[in-house]
Amino acid sequence: MDFSSFITSLGTSFVIFVVLMVVFTWLQRKPGNAVIYYPNRILRGLDPLEGRTRTRNPLAWIKEAVLASEADVIDAAGVDAAVYLLFLSSVLAILVLAGIVLLPVLLPLAATDQGPTNATDTNSNGTFNNLDKLAMGHVRERSPRLWAFLLGVYWVSFVTYYVLWKSYKHVSNLRATAKSSPEVKPEEFTVLARDIPPAASGQSIKDQIDSYFKALHPETFYRSMVVTDNKKANEIWEEIEGYKKKLDRSEVVYAESKTTGKPDGTRPTNRIGFLGLVGEKVDTINHCNEKINELLPKFEAEQKSTLRDKQQSAALIFFNSKPAATSASQTIHAQKIDTWTVMEAPEPRQILWANLPKKFYERKIRSLIIYGIVFLTVCFYMIPITIISSLTTLPNLKKYLPFLKKIIDQPEIRTVLEAFLPQLALILFMALLPSLLMFLSKEEGIPSESHVVRAASGKYFYFIVFNVFLGVTIGGTLLGNLQKIIDQPKDTISLLGENLPKNATFFLTYVALKFFVGYGLELSRLVPLIIFHIKKKFLCKTEAEVKEAWAPGAFSYATRVPNDMLIVTIVLCYSVIAPIILPFGAVYFGLGWLIARNQALKVYVPKYESNGRMWPHIHTRVITALIVYQVAMFGYILILKRFYWAPFMIPDIIASFIFSYLCKKHFYLAFFHTPLEVACQGAKEIPNMEAIYTAYIPPCLSSEKSDDGDADRFEDAHSHSMRTTSF
Amino acid sequence: MDFSSFITSLGTSFVIFVVLMVVFTWLQRKPGNAVIYYPNRILRGLDPLEGRTRTRNPLAWIKEAVLASEADVIDAAGVDAAVYLLFLSSVLAILVLAGIVLLPVLLPLAATDQGPTNATDTNSNGTFNNLDKLAMGHVRERSPRLWAFLLGVYWVSFVTYYVLWKSYKHVSNLRATAKSSPEVKPEEFTVLARDIPPAASGQSIKDQIDSYFKALHPETFYRSMVVTDNKKANEIWEEIEGYKKKLDRSEVVYAESKTTGKPDGTRPTNRIGFLGLVGEKVDTINHCNEKINELLPKFEAEQKSTLRDKQQSAALIFFNSKPAATSASQTIHAQKIDTWTVMEAPEPRQILWANLPKKFYERKIRSLIIYGIVFLTVCFYMIPITIISSLTTLPNLKKYLPFLKKIIDQPEIRTVLEAFLPQLALILFMALLPSLLMFLSKEEGIPSESHVVRAASGKYFYFIVFNVFLGVTIGGTLLGNLQKIIDQPKDTISLLGENLPKNATFFLTYVALKFFVGYGLELSRLVPLIIFHIKKKFLCKTEAEVKEAWAPGAFSYATRVPNDMLIVTIVLCYSVIAPIILPFGAVYFGLGWLIARNQALKVYVPKYESNGRMWPHIHTRVITALIVYQVAMFGYILILKRFYWAPFMIPDIIASFIFSYLCKKHFYLAFFHTPLEVACQGAKEIPNMEAIYTAYIPPCLSSEKSDDGDADRFEDAHSHSMRTTSF
Repeated sequence: MDFSSFITSLGTSFVIFVVLMVVFTWLQRKPGNAVIYYPNRILRGLDPLEGRTRTRNPLAWIKEAVLASEADVIDAAGVDAAVYLLFLSSVLAILVLAGIVLLPVLLPLAATDQGPTNATDTNSNGTFNNLDKLAMGHVRERSPRLWAFLLGVYWVSFVTYYVLWKSYKHVSNLRATAKSSPEVKPEEFTVLARDIPPAASGQSIKDQIDSYFKALHPETFYRSMVVTDNKKANEIWEEIEGYKKKLDRSEVVYAESKTTGKPDGTRPTNRIGFLGLVGEKVDTINHCNEKINELLPKFEAEQKSTLRDKQQSAALIFFNSKPAATSASQTIHAQKIDTWTVMEAPEPRQILWANLPKKFYERKIRSLIIYGIVFLTVCFYMIPITIISSLTTLPNLKKYLPFLKKIIDQPEIRTVLEAFLPQLALILFMALLPSLLMFLSKEEGIPSESHVVRAASGKYFYFIVFNVFLGVTIGGTLLGNLQKIIDQPKDTISLLGENLPKNATFFLTYVALKFFVGYGLELSRLVPLIIFHIKKKFLCKTEAEVKEAWAPGAFSYATRVPNDMLIVTIVLCYSVIAPIILPFGAVYFGLGWLIARNQALKVYVPKYESNGRMWPHIHTRVITALIVYQVAMFGYILILKRFYWAPFMIPDIIASFIFSYLCKKHFYLAFFHTPLEVACQGAKEIPNMEAIYTAYIPPCLSSEKSDDGDADRFEDAHSHSMRTTSF
Repeated sequence: MDFSSFITSLGTSFVIFVVLMVVFTWLQRKPGNAVIYYPNRILRGLDPLEGRTRTRNPLAWIKEAVLASEADVIDAAGVDAAVYLLFLSSVLAILVLAGIVLLPVLLPLAATDQGPTNATDTNSNGTFNNLDKLAMGHVRERSPRLWAFLLGVYWVSFVTYYVLWKSYKHVSNLRATAKSSPEVKPEEFTVLARDIPPAASGQSIKDQIDSYFKALHPETFYRSMVVTDNKKANEIWEEIEGYKKKLDRSEVVYAESKTTGKPDGTRPTNRIGFLGLVGEKVDTINHCNEKINELLPKFEAEQKSTLRDKQQSAALIFFNSKPAATSASQTIHAQKIDTWTVMEAPEPRQILWANLPKKFYERKIRSLIIYGIVFLTVCFYMIPITIISSLTTLPNLKKYLPFLKKIIDQPEIRTVLEAFLPQLALILFMALLPSLLMFLSKEEGIPSESHVVRAASGKYFYFIVFNVFLGVTIGGTLLGNLQKIIDQPKDTISLLGENLPKNATFFLTYVALKFFVGYGLELSRLVPLIIFHIKKKFLCKTEAEVKEAWAPGAFSYATRVPNDMLIVTIVLCYSVIAPIILPFGAVYFGLGWLIARNQALKVYVPKYESNGRMWPHIHTRVITALIVYQVAMFGYILILKRFYWAPFMIPDIIASFIFSYLCKKHFYLAFFHTPLEVACQGAKEIPNMEAIYTAYIPPCLSSEKSDDGDADRFEDAHSHSMRTTSF
């Protein structure tokens, strides 16, 4: 890519960004769009337009995002969002601190050198464009100027250590503060027990669990809730809910028809066959009522049998104090340590019920198999895509699907298909990948949603770094110069040395595109806005349906974090080779921080709260990126630049491992377990244990009729509450 | 080694063994030797000759050793000895089960083959002796008979898995039984807290500790004991104890002199200068009394100042119930997880006080440095020895130490020196190695004696396997054939193939020597017997001194276990190459089990009790030996025997790793922490907490005058007892 096309691409992206910003400023003022631009505020019962009325300044949102305190962010979007923002601002700090030193030192050093003098120079056209002149490729082999680049790696490393340590400390405090708040959270009084051995004959699982925990925690055990296999009950419940929605909708349609058409109105009808297309035509309102009445007794019978007969080998154990639950969750209970395993219970809203009864060794084996699948996917994902691509060429389509022949033979359609068919498989696969990884992570037997997100994010990170980063830099260079390499295999290394710095321009464009177009779309929320208006106009009839149409969703950390991590990896790796990438990286994370803050404060609504449990995961991956960078630089300076002082970089690599070890020892365990110190803070009184217990009852097992008597109905799978002496 | 010299060596060893057995049978009947052969029984207050009087059979001890139950062994020598015996019997079981199949199958297969047909055969003299004919070296390359050997590896592996799993389960139960016994053990009510942060100004460390644990364990905290730097107090205490002993001794000498010589007796005198050789001559009794009276007030002042001013950043925390202490020891206490770290307290008798206050990161760094030192020692230990050996030749000695010239020039001394000087450095080093490793392990900052023994044993195992086993097999072959290898480097592999099976004979002799001579000496206890009689005759004057002279000591697991592990490694590795080694290994472990049982029941007195904590360590090393064996056999069959079905052994190697992982998951954690289930068994009443507390007071800080008031004197470093509501 030459300099002018780089500027063109940058310019285009910038224009798109400006257009999107203008669109955003204009759209967000319309009251009808408030549910798209301020859903978080609306759901929290605040005035969505509060900020707008004070000032007509179109950039007011920036002021608001900057001025909001961390506490505001936590109030609006939880600790997880605050930790994600801290990740963005930490990387920003690393890049700014690195840039302050590297830009003024390395750019002149590279620009004023005489250019490389290696053998392949004569093959290339010999003209370095302006951008490449500013990169390390322009420094001669064995030049003493390489010392500055070598020390640059040290500077970046130490800046990273400093910022990461401070951030880890900060997150650690955030977590401790959140965990020691006096607010009563059900999960803090609850322990999840899994791998419960089969009960003795004549004893129900519930009895066994109760007697076991009563014996070990005589003072603090409150009661237990056995996990049941409620798949069938859930199905019936969902069916009933579906009919209820349909009923509501039909009634609204019927009422509307009264006002517009005949005064009696038209009773809505539907067919009861496949997809409502075939079969007998029925009156929808009557049909739904009939169905609901038919299903309700079945549902209640199923609820009962679920609670009685479908008890599984996992349970939630409730304690009457936070320290007791904390202590119990960290203590080995059984002599056979693969039975009665305990852990802190996840929040009720993020429990994955189906995973709880999975057995100890089953979980290990599932993990192993899934790591294998992911490893193969990461390494060989190009193979199935290539196969599918080769199968879905136009001639093949015509051959196997002859009925498409007429459509394909249209010249316009033909052109479009020819352009997109080869990439179709890749685009589809990349779009499906996050869902695939989420699915695989869930299958590992992980008990909570937030843990699944972490696991999927980790898998996605390795995929993206391996394929995008390494694929483009090394694969791209080698494939692009395949003929040269075959002719002169010895030149491979010089080729790499020549091309790696040039790849920097590609990544510069990539980063710029990401922030201009990506962030523009993110902030303006054009896609959700359009979908919402279409749905509202044509589909939604009831209030609930409208609300569902603008539901903002949560930050999707499983894809956001790995994508940001890819940028971290790219920018770190090129920070010394082509320091000009640093300002681009800084803008990416600066703008990202600003926009994510806006979204956290006004748009997204968290689905769960893991109190910053994501941080150790992020931390490890930043360190991984740093080590990849250090090793790459070591190889680059030693092999490609033939600089024999390069081994002076080895202590730096060792320092990264030591730093990682220190951080783990210093902080990690407090993210894995709750320290007793933290659990002992906060309210001392015994809270409403009934409410804590009820919070964990899955919706399909709770009775809507008697909200107050919920807990008492569960005598089969759940133990009677037990008055402790300390009450 | 040819067959006749093998038989000679075996015969000589056997004769020595028989002689030692006869000596043992004769000596153990003499009542004067009871303290050497039955010290354990005497110390437990049993009749030492109980077994002997019933029968005159010289082999009665065998009957007793076999008939004693495991409970008897635990009563006499603790769970640790029972676990060590189980290790011996488990290996015996593995070897017997392996031998039952391998001997009748593999020996005929090897003996009836036509011998190897490789190129080097023409170089050797071509005559295989009887022993080598029975080994795998006699099977031709690529012969289908190799399938039997390959399957033999599988058989040995599965036998090992089976026996190890059963043994681990058994030890796990032994440990649970011991831990849940109703007997009150101080360590079960105690938690060791380390890395206590500096106290706020104006607050003593003790106050800080008390308020911290009272807040976190309001119901169950009893009191705390701060670790103090009692080095100086201990020095003074030891000095006083020394003078007391000397006083006792002088008084006995004085009393004796009255009966033998003059009626007034001779008052013993000594010189007070260097080693009692120079300086003023004084009356010993008066001198000692003076010294003791002089030191006592100094000692009491030091005790007080130690308790008040020398408090360290570690403490023992006492709880009023076993489950509370267990639970507390497994719970993270502080948000900063590298402060207030807690663990189960070691037994009072095995605490290493000096290590307790060592800081978290200091311990990590010390471990790292010591691993480095051990790694270098294991890899390069031959270098310093070679240097010392080359320096301590006779000419050098004469040159540097001319005053020795006269002695060295004596022809007899010269011959002896010439024979032994080269090995002197090696012998000295090997004799000092266990102490060096114990010292290094202690320096890691490990808090208990038993843990230090495990750590030293692990280090010794790697040393011994690397140097003795690999050194002899591979190093020996390569060095012995250095000229051939230099001439024809390509033949290295064939040379190894030819020589490895022949090494089996060397190891056969080694194993036989070990059990015949080693066990003979162990059982007959000739060395302790002679030392005891010399000491009793010439040195001991008081009762206490005599008792000290026959004190039996404990099993020295730190050297025993690695030495046995070396035999395990050797026998496993040769089990298929030369199955004839199996009976020798079986005799080694059978005889070892018998003799160790005898010693456990009658001789050794345990220094500490770790409830079988050694087992996971032993287990891991047996698995390591198994994996070394599998990998070696894979290499041997694939490379040396050119058998291309050898990759069929890879699943076996993987199976070993999986087995190891399973065992760890299934059993290990219950050895690391005490399960709550176990802690909740046993006595429910609150025991005498005062006694538990007093058990932990180091001797130099306890007052001998007021035994009952000990605990109350420690108000400075130790908190006042706290009455809990449940009392």
